[in-house]
Amino acid sequence: MSFEYPVSRRTFMGGLAAALGGIRLPSIEPEPLQGSRDPQQAYDKLAKLGSNENPYGPSRTVLKAMQDVFKYANRYGYPDGGIVEALAEHHGVAPENILLGAGSSEILKVCNDTFLRSHKFIVAPDPTYESVFRFATNTKADAIKVPILEDYRTDIPGIIRAVKNNYRDVGLVYICNPNNPTGLVVPKQEIKLLMDSIPDDVPVLIDEAYHHYVNNPDYAESIPYVREGRNVIVARTFSKISGLAGMRLGYGVAPVELIRRMTLMANGSINVLVKYAGVAALKDVAHDAEVRKRTLALRDRTIAELQSMGYEVMMPTDANFFMVDVGEEVTSIGWQFRERGVIVGRKFPPYDEFLRVSIGTEQEMDRFMAAFKDLFPPLK
Amino acid sequence: MSFEYPVSRRTFMGGLAAALGGIRLPSIEPEPLQGSRDPQQAYDKLAKLGSNENPYGPSRTVLKAMQDVFKYANRYGYPDGGIVEALAEHHGVAPENILLGAGSSEILKVCNDTFLRSHKFIVAPDPTYESVFRFATNTKADAIKVPILEDYRTDIPGIIRAVKNNYRDVGLVYICNPNNPTGLVVPKQEIKLLMDSIPDDVPVLIDEAYHHYVNNPDYAESIPYVREGRNVIVARTFSKISGLAGMRLGYGVAPVELIRRMTLMANGSINVLVKYAGVAALKDVAHDAEVRKRTLALRDRTIAELQSMGYEVMMPTDANFFMVDVGEEVTSIGWQFRERGVIVGRKFPPYDEFLRVSIGTEQEMDRFMAAFKDLFPPLK
Repeated sequence: MSFEYPVSRRTFMGGLAAALGGIRLPSIEPEPLQGSRDPQQAYDKLAKLGSNENPYGPSRTVLKAMQDVFKYANRYGYPDGGIVEALAEHHGVAPENILLGAGSSEILKVCNDTFLRSHKFIVAPDPTYESVFRFATNTKADAIKVPILEDYRTDIPGIIRAVKNNYRDVGLVYICNPNNPTGLVVPKQEIKLLMDSIPDDVPVLIDEAYHHYVNNPDYAESIPYVREGRNVIVARTFSKISGLAGMRLGYGVAPVELIRRMTLMANGSINVLVKYAGVAALKDVAHDAEVRKRTLALRDRTIAELQSMGYEVMMPTDANFFMVDVGEEVTSIGWQFRERGVIVGRKFPPYDEFLRVSIGTEQEMDRFMAAFKDLFPPLK
Repeated sequence: MSFEYPVSRRTFMGGLAAALGGIRLPSIEPEPLQGSRDPQQAYDKLAKLGSNENPYGPSRTVLKAMQDVFKYANRYGYPDGGIVEALAEHHGVAPENILLGAGSSEILKVCNDTFLRSHKFIVAPDPTYESVFRFATNTKADAIKVPILEDYRTDIPGIIRAVKNNYRDVGLVYICNPNNPTGLVVPKQEIKLLMDSIPDDVPVLIDEAYHHYVNNPDYAESIPYVREGRNVIVARTFSKISGLAGMRLGYGVAPVELIRRMTLMANGSINVLVKYAGVAALKDVAHDAEVRKRTLALRDRTIAELQSMGYEVMMPTDANFFMVDVGEEVTSIGWQFRERGVIVGRKFPPYDEFLRVSIGTEQEMDRFMAAFKDLFPPLK
């Protein structure tokens, strides 16, 4: 066996540059899965519209940044590409205001473990990103779920009431903005109302995973509350707009005192490649803009077509997904889409008849619409 | 801006194959760091002997496995390369006996969070891998630290006594085998004595991070206890022998009931590339054997030279590091090595005058010995 050091930066990058030379968007096989015995090959052929992923993946500069640091695959912790400093600069905060997580879900878990010990309650809209409820249950905390309103908006006055009425037991408020699975934003005035109405010592976790897809004048990011020193943690992720879901990088932005407490509960285990990927992704604003432009255009086109067929969509969605009322329980519907080469979202109670559809590539959305028309008649 | 899908498996791999064509072990710059203003360049030039890393990095097949799945960088969770099934088969257990972690340190953290709630105690040797004590402190658990013996062996009878004398408060026993920072194994007879002597309902976490470097007939892996359904969790990692420390993949092997409880506390956030890397690494036994052969040869040669100079080394070490008594407090010594282009281990109280040295490449060990001779006279 020859035993050669496998990674040399220069040679490796030469190979990468060659590899990246002339690659075009892959064609998605139009035919579904019959005949494929390899589950991974079968998966590759599916239009994956079930997990709010970015179908385009990371940009070239991000891929190259990861390639460049394969040489650090065997090193702990350092070097880290300066990711914390880059994030701090990006958001106009100090490095001490940033906590990295293996995806923003680790930030949600860390908030759970930090603020909900001693069986405290989390107050959150329902439905929302369900991991927060699962984390609470797993650690024997409890949840007060405040149903969203009839028009699908997060019920901020209801959340404020729930906090005030249970003040001694509430450890954390969770807001997902835009909310998942509805796609609707919480308007900036209502975030302000929440922040100004609940007791100062109740931390508010604002999950802005879908921030980059928002195109709504009523929305504002909540990081300014961190700069003001308010009792708020903003969670962000590279999973969505940057196409790095599988690489696991998210972060929390919060006042130093909160970050210090949260750090005690964190694993501190972040993959080295994605730290460099994150630094590169922050700079690649053109890629973000292109992903956003394509995603919103395909989303709006698909929604318009469904509406023209007479189907109700939860509106307005400001995320890379939407919910459409298909008029029957969606679990079995999911299997029918699957047979047509499309993965769609699972059921989100109590909206059992709404199908959540993530925005894929143009070909994937075409396949979705073909399957939809195959399964559902026009209602008008 | 052109917006092309950046990863195509075939083209990318062609590039990789070319890149991997004729790469040799990198020469480590003999001169230290003066003049380098880029901290990352400066780091690259250092001989990094402070963190028990594998200096050779992952094997080619592992690197290629990671390259092949760049296309999944934007996907959550699945595909996963079948890593859990591969580990189960490797160890002769069921997939339900495996819990993945972002490094084995996540497994240690998960054990902490699962078994030390309600302010319970961890019983562990002292010194050992200190993260377990940090996790306990951070979550307001407590520790009973049982000093190692005068000959540096883990004091198993002492640990048994500590468990029995504090039975109602003990939530977890931690054994690192081989122990870090001493390098000494706990003999299989003593592991058995521990397992058979403490109450059945006290879980024992056995950290086998350095398993692959052991060459000692008194040692045995503890996974058979899992197969017997004993109350044990064995932690393993791809960070050491597989050279994947920065990629973050470890796992726990334990009876199903323990895995179920532990899963509730896990992040479930594992980088997709390293899942495939792990599958490839399990198969690449030739790489493991070569890393082990080189590492042990360099370790034994270095130790022999230090001993011939009259310096005491904690023996026998069965890991990819050793502890040498330099006769003075090592913190300032560390800076003197650093000036000579070598990173060495930090202080491990109460052995303040022992320097922990990880085994690097041959060139790195030569640089270490040159620095050592520069700093310390022969004692005989």
